[in-house]
Amino acid sequence: MNNPKQRCIELSHGGGGVEMSALIRKLFFKHFSNDILLADEDAARLQFNGPVAFTTDSFTVAPRQFNGGNLGKIAVAGTVNDLAMAGAKPQYLSCAFIIEEGLTFAELELQVKSMAAELEKSGAKIVCGDTKVVPKGAADGLFINTSGVGECVAAPSWRQLQTGDAIIVSRDIGRHGACILASREGLELDSELASDCDTLWPAVKALLDAGIDAKAMRDATRGGLAAVLNEWAASRQLGIVVDEQSLPIDPAVQGLCELFGFEPAELANEGTFVLAVSPEQADEAVAILQQFQPRATLIGHVSADYSGKVVQNSPWGSKRYMELPKGELLPRIC
Amino acid sequence: MNNPKQRCIELSHGGGGVEMSALIRKLFFKHFSNDILLADEDAARLQFNGPVAFTTDSFTVAPRQFNGGNLGKIAVAGTVNDLAMAGAKPQYLSCAFIIEEGLTFAELELQVKSMAAELEKSGAKIVCGDTKVVPKGAADGLFINTSGVGECVAAPSWRQLQTGDAIIVSRDIGRHGACILASREGLELDSELASDCDTLWPAVKALLDAGIDAKAMRDATRGGLAAVLNEWAASRQLGIVVDEQSLPIDPAVQGLCELFGFEPAELANEGTFVLAVSPEQADEAVAILQQFQPRATLIGHVSADYSGKVVQNSPWGSKRYMELPKGELLPRIC
Repeated sequence: MNNPKQRCIELSHGGGGVEMSALIRKLFFKHFSNDILLADEDAARLQFNGPVAFTTDSFTVAPRQFNGGNLGKIAVAGTVNDLAMAGAKPQYLSCAFIIEEGLTFAELELQVKSMAAELEKSGAKIVCGDTKVVPKGAADGLFINTSGVGECVAAPSWRQLQTGDAIIVSRDIGRHGACILASREGLELDSELASDCDTLWPAVKALLDAGIDAKAMRDATRGGLAAVLNEWAASRQLGIVVDEQSLPIDPAVQGLCELFGFEPAELANEGTFVLAVSPEQADEAVAILQQFQPRATLIGHVSADYSGKVVQNSPWGSKRYMELPKGELLPRIC
Repeated sequence: MNNPKQRCIELSHGGGGVEMSALIRKLFFKHFSNDILLADEDAARLQFNGPVAFTTDSFTVAPRQFNGGNLGKIAVAGTVNDLAMAGAKPQYLSCAFIIEEGLTFAELELQVKSMAAELEKSGAKIVCGDTKVVPKGAADGLFINTSGVGECVAAPSWRQLQTGDAIIVSRDIGRHGACILASREGLELDSELASDCDTLWPAVKALLDAGIDAKAMRDATRGGLAAVLNEWAASRQLGIVVDEQSLPIDPAVQGLCELFGFEPAELANEGTFVLAVSPEQADEAVAILQQFQPRATLIGHVSADYSGKVVQNSPWGSKRYMELPKGELLPRIC
C-alpha cells in the first residue's frame, strides 16, 4: 500500500532518543504549538480554581479516513465533547499516539493537522503527549488516545432527571455508524452520506449562555441514542417515552439500516447529543440547537411509567421498548 | 496459546451496550472502586485550587509479564511517576484499554489487579476510563493508556539548574531495559535480574517533606539516564559532568550490556529518577533516597564547561561524551 518513496515511521521514532525528539519538535510541536506545550516538561502545569472535569478516550476507528472526518478529527472532537457534556469548558487535552512501524509521515501529518483544525472549534489546547511506536503487525496503523481537563461551568447529571422533562436530540441520528458501515462495505450511495463527527462545545455554550438549565447531556456515541436513553432510565429509575415518528433520521441512514438490519437509534454518532431540560425550556433549547443543526428535535419526555425502560410510541398507536444494544455489529467505530 | 475453556474478550465488550456495561461494572469498578469513579458519568468531576500537573502515557510493553512487574503495574507507576517528577501529588488517573479480541478475562483481571495494587503505593485513584476492543490482529493483546492529574506541591524544572548543582540517581540504572532484553532473548541468568518498575512518589514525598529543594527531577525511562542528562544539558545550555565510576550498575545489567553492546546509561528504567539539588543539600538528599534504595548515589554535577553536553570522567582520567541515544535497539520497553 505504501509508496516506497514516502518517508515512514520507524521504531527509532519511539525510542526516546534523537529521532523521537525530532518527530516531536518537527511534527507535534509545529501543529499543536501553544505556551503550555512549549514549556517542554513531561507534565503540563495548569491552573484551576474550582470543579474540573477529567475524561479519557482511545480512538481506533477504521477506516482512518471517512466521509466527514478522520481519526485525528474524531480523537479531538470525542474528548472535547465528553468535557462539554460534563458542563466543562474544553481547555486542555493530552494526546498519546500508538503508531505502527511503517505508517507514512504524510498520513501522520494529515491526522495531526486534522486534530489541530478541530481544536480551533473549541479553543482547547494539547498540552502534553506521548509517542509509542510498535513493530509492524502489533497495531493497525495508528491509535490515538486523548484525555481532557476543563473547568466546569455547569453540572448536568442524570441524577437531575424528573418526570416531565423534555428529551431533545441535537440533530439527525445514526450518521457516523452508517457512514462507517457504508465505507466498509464499499457502498456507492446516491446521497453523500457524511459522518456527523464534530465538536459540540459551541452548541453547548450557546445553550448555557442563554440560561438553559441542561439537566442531563450525553453525546450518543457507541450504542447510539438507545444506549444514552437506557442508561439514563436505568440509572434514575424513571421511564423515558420517545415519539418514534419524531426521531430525525436521514433517508440514506434509514435506507442503510433497512438493508443491514440495524436500528438508527443504535448506530453510533460522533457529533450528536441528547439533552434533557424542563418542559418550560424545551422550545427555546430546540430553537438554539437549530441554529447549529436544523434537525434538532424534541423527541420525548421522562415519564413516571415504565421505570428503568425506554418506550417508543409508533405512529399507529403501538408501543415497543428501545433496548440497550447487545453484541457488536460494527467494531472500531471510534 | 489460549486455553479454549477460558473466557475471552469479544468485540461486543467494546460495543457500548450490555456486554461493555457488564465488563466495566464487574471488572473495572470492582478493582478500581472509589467515590469519584462510582459517580458513573463519562467525565470525573474533581476539585482543584492552584497549580495542577497533567500528563499522559500509553503502555505497550512486551512481554506483558516480566520479572518485577507487568503491563498493569507499569501503566500506573509510569503516570504516577510523571506526576511525582513534576512535583505533583499523584491524585487522579484515567485508564483507557485497547484490547485485542480474544484476550482472556483471566489476563485482563490480572493486569487490572496489578494496577489496583500499584495505586495503593501513592494513593492515586482511577476516576474515569475507556474500553475499546479491536478485532484479532489489530493490536497485540493489550495496550493501556493512563493520564494523570494532581496538585503541584513543588515546581522542579531544568530551568533552575545552576553550575555546581549535584546530580543524583535514585538507585542502580538500566534494570528495566536489561530485564526486558533478557526475557525477550530467553536468557537464564545466574542472578534474579528484576525490573526496577515502581512508584516513586513515596521517595519524592520524603525529599520534599525533609525540605530538599528538588531543582530538577526526571524519571529515566526510554533513553535512560543518557536521555535525561542530555535533555537537561541541551535545554539549559550548561554542561553535566558525570563520574563514570560512581554510576551504580548491577553486575547482571553490566554483563548483559557487554554481551549485547548496550550502554547501561541508555537502557530504560521504570522506577529510577535523576535529581538535581544544590551542592549543600546533596548528602542529605542521597541519605533520604537510600532509605528507599540503598544504591542511590551522587554521580556528578552541573558545570559551566561543555555547554549543552554530558561528559563522563573515566577512572583513568580520560573523558568521553555520554550521547543522546540514537536508533531503537529495544522496542516496546514500556
